[in-house]
Amino acid sequence: MSASSSCSKLSYKLNKHLDQDCPAPPVSLGRAWAEAYPSEQSPYKTSTHEAQQSVPGLLNLAQGVPGHLPSSGLLERVKLELGKDCMAAASYGPVFGAPELRAALAEDMNQRYAVQAEQCRINVQNVAITAGANMAAAVAFQAVAGPGDAVVLPTPWYFNHQMTLASLGVDVIALPTSAPSFEPDPSSFSTLLKDEATSKRIKALVLVTPNNPTGAIYSEEVLHRFADLCKDSGVALILDETYRDFLLDESGAREGQEVFKRPHSLFSRPDWQATIIHIYSFSKSYAIPGWRLGALVAHEALLAGAISSQSFGPVAKALDNYQICPARIDAQRAVAWAIHDSNEKTWRLQNAKLLLARRTAFLELMTAVEKSGWKVECTGAYYAYVSHPWARVSSETVAKELAQRVGVVVLPGAFFTPAQSRESAAQRLRFSIANVCIDRLQELPARLELISQMELA
Amino acid sequence: MSASSSCSKLSYKLNKHLDQDCPAPPVSLGRAWAEAYPSEQSPYKTSTHEAQQSVPGLLNLAQGVPGHLPSSGLLERVKLELGKDCMAAASYGPVFGAPELRAALAEDMNQRYAVQAEQCRINVQNVAITAGANMAAAVAFQAVAGPGDAVVLPTPWYFNHQMTLASLGVDVIALPTSAPSFEPDPSSFSTLLKDEATSKRIKALVLVTPNNPTGAIYSEEVLHRFADLCKDSGVALILDETYRDFLLDESGAREGQEVFKRPHSLFSRPDWQATIIHIYSFSKSYAIPGWRLGALVAHEALLAGAISSQSFGPVAKALDNYQICPARIDAQRAVAWAIHDSNEKTWRLQNAKLLLARRTAFLELMTAVEKSGWKVECTGAYYAYVSHPWARVSSETVAKELAQRVGVVVLPGAFFTPAQSRESAAQRLRFSIANVCIDRLQELPARLELISQMELA
Repeated sequence: MSASSSCSKLSYKLNKHLDQDCPAPPVSLGRAWAEAYPSEQSPYKTSTHEAQQSVPGLLNLAQGVPGHLPSSGLLERVKLELGKDCMAAASYGPVFGAPELRAALAEDMNQRYAVQAEQCRINVQNVAITAGANMAAAVAFQAVAGPGDAVVLPTPWYFNHQMTLASLGVDVIALPTSAPSFEPDPSSFSTLLKDEATSKRIKALVLVTPNNPTGAIYSEEVLHRFADLCKDSGVALILDETYRDFLLDESGAREGQEVFKRPHSLFSRPDWQATIIHIYSFSKSYAIPGWRLGALVAHEALLAGAISSQSFGPVAKALDNYQICPARIDAQRAVAWAIHDSNEKTWRLQNAKLLLARRTAFLELMTAVEKSGWKVECTGAYYAYVSHPWARVSSETVAKELAQRVGVVVLPGAFFTPAQSRESAAQRLRFSIANVCIDRLQELPARLELISQMELA
Repeated sequence: MSASSSCSKLSYKLNKHLDQDCPAPPVSLGRAWAEAYPSEQSPYKTSTHEAQQSVPGLLNLAQGVPGHLPSSGLLERVKLELGKDCMAAASYGPVFGAPELRAALAEDMNQRYAVQAEQCRINVQNVAITAGANMAAAVAFQAVAGPGDAVVLPTPWYFNHQMTLASLGVDVIALPTSAPSFEPDPSSFSTLLKDEATSKRIKALVLVTPNNPTGAIYSEEVLHRFADLCKDSGVALILDETYRDFLLDESGAREGQEVFKRPHSLFSRPDWQATIIHIYSFSKSYAIPGWRLGALVAHEALLAGAISSQSFGPVAKALDNYQICPARIDAQRAVAWAIHDSNEKTWRLQNAKLLLARRTAFLELMTAVEKSGWKVECTGAYYAYVSHPWARVSSETVAKELAQRVGVVVLPGAFFTPAQSRESAAQRLRFSIANVCIDRLQELPARLELISQMELA
């Protein structure tokens, strides 16, 4: 123990919303489990005869992390931007980020979502650049919900959404989804909206598509039904599309050239801004999570427009409080360039293609352990939601043992669900399959096979 | 107006804590005012005969911004770090930031605050690196106070502290300070702690020393009295020392070499960790606000230690929710190096010396406009808190007119005080004197003189 731990106990009390209501950060837990795994070359610990076998190294499929470098073009560009204008990069920037990046993203979205009508087009005023998509989500939540209000999250949920809402004193209402589609049901949401106990407190619905953790992609029809329900009830639809750039349009490919798929047509609704708050992340598509760049796209009144007597929207205020500006030096200008550069676009397409191939390989590999009770319930480009074989062992225990015994780090289903409905998630794990190359994924069946034969407490 | 503004009104409602309780961000308001000032070379607008005079350019003394580049050594180092390990920099980092930077800051603090006793020493486990000091403050607040709780802020306050607390549904209780010392009074705080209406709701006291906006430096005696009161009442003492590196020890200087002054002896209290949550910013001392690096230093239980049944402290959770990790590429390792490098230390000392000279020059220059009703009430290295001549004009109006008519951008005193006590601040303005060089400051008296003769509505 460090010297400081011998220090006296805290004299002050902790905020219960953050200390008690908000659970521990899963990704940090995953890191701790991974650290408990013996070093790269040592045999793993187990009481069975397989103990003699050596497990070559850790397979970390916990946090959603791009398993590869950013494009060399983007790295060169950052060095260029850094050399060009050090002073500007070291200074504070505008609260909503670099104008170049805001404009580039707006234009990119108009193209990707095939937004035609003038009144629907996404403008620079609709875009705020944030220090990552978690920041965008936290600020979107705070813009529409306060202590005592409620927000609906389909389950399994993305844990930081639940953690952030809980820490702010906002109630989370679960909207369960189930295999095989893991798509939330608009009629169940409609029932919640009519329920006297909840109706007035519900301020937002959060949809993550493609989903984290299940990978599920919600259909056009379901998305529009949710948008209608939200609009009619004055509820915000917070749409997290962190994984939108891993959808390829195979039908639209010409002469063997890949094109990105249009994720959905919600942005062609003439009134989308009245209802939708869109969240985006540059971390996955551009492979730059450490640069901390995300975005919030919404009605300009939510950002800086005059909606009340004040001339700054709630997003401007919250971002000023938390980030002041997104970090520079100067990733923002480099990314603004990368959005439109054709080589960079090809890099992202190839990357998406690579991840789809990884997913195909993963599905094939997993058939080998089906007989041992492993089942892939749902997958996207980034994540697979998988059932494990131990009916009576909690998903946390399984995840912990997987890391420590066979060096496979994944996250338990329990982290994505409310305490009262943990049972349905108890047998599930989220594999972040985008993290490692196909070569490394080959090791997975043998390791899963091995632990399948063990007794887990 | 943009096309998007023709879009329908919001269908959802806004969170009142953020939309109504939390005021508009002063720094963004300052930017807006500055933009209303005619371009660099044009004559400024006024109805008087001075209209013919040309005002060479904007003097922006609003946001606290270092008016110079970071050291060339640090800029080179960032390029080096970027070239060395692009992959690591582009990946997620640990939630508390780079271990090198945490360790370097801990060691630097032990030296600077002359911490001797083993039990008092600041360790790496006490340090969390945050995406700026606003982030550190937001997380510290959330760690100890939730909706309905109260936090005490001496007034004039640092506006983002009040904004963040209001947005979280935490009540702010003002502890007024006044000229000439602008030091808060421990007995007034003690009265609040005993007051039935407030005592149980007070979770923290926030002290900013050297102060923003007044520049006041709190005495040893006052700091220890506040620490005693906080400890005895189970209230957290949140100590924001963003400006600590602009204090030079002139008595300790040997052979003409400057040394930093020990800011105070609070960290030598054997129980400091039980009570104190320290906030630090790299933005000012290292002249890198755009890099977004700050720190929170506190009891390790608050960070990641096991204080309840959970193994992650509230700071780990909140930082996971908001920042995931501080931005890399890789400012953190470069700054870790800069903390101890002797040339870099000299650069910071020279910088502090420069700012003190700027302050002296500012005080001298301001004597010229004393007869016109301008009075410097209090100053630090970064800020001066100044009275203006118009007894019946609000500080917001004066600030706005100063920017638009004579191109001097400052922040109104009203931004640093609660609505009910605006009157005392109505005649005050905060000048961020660290922003511009002495040459530019020379222009200030003439401009102030000029506007002093105008009628302000």
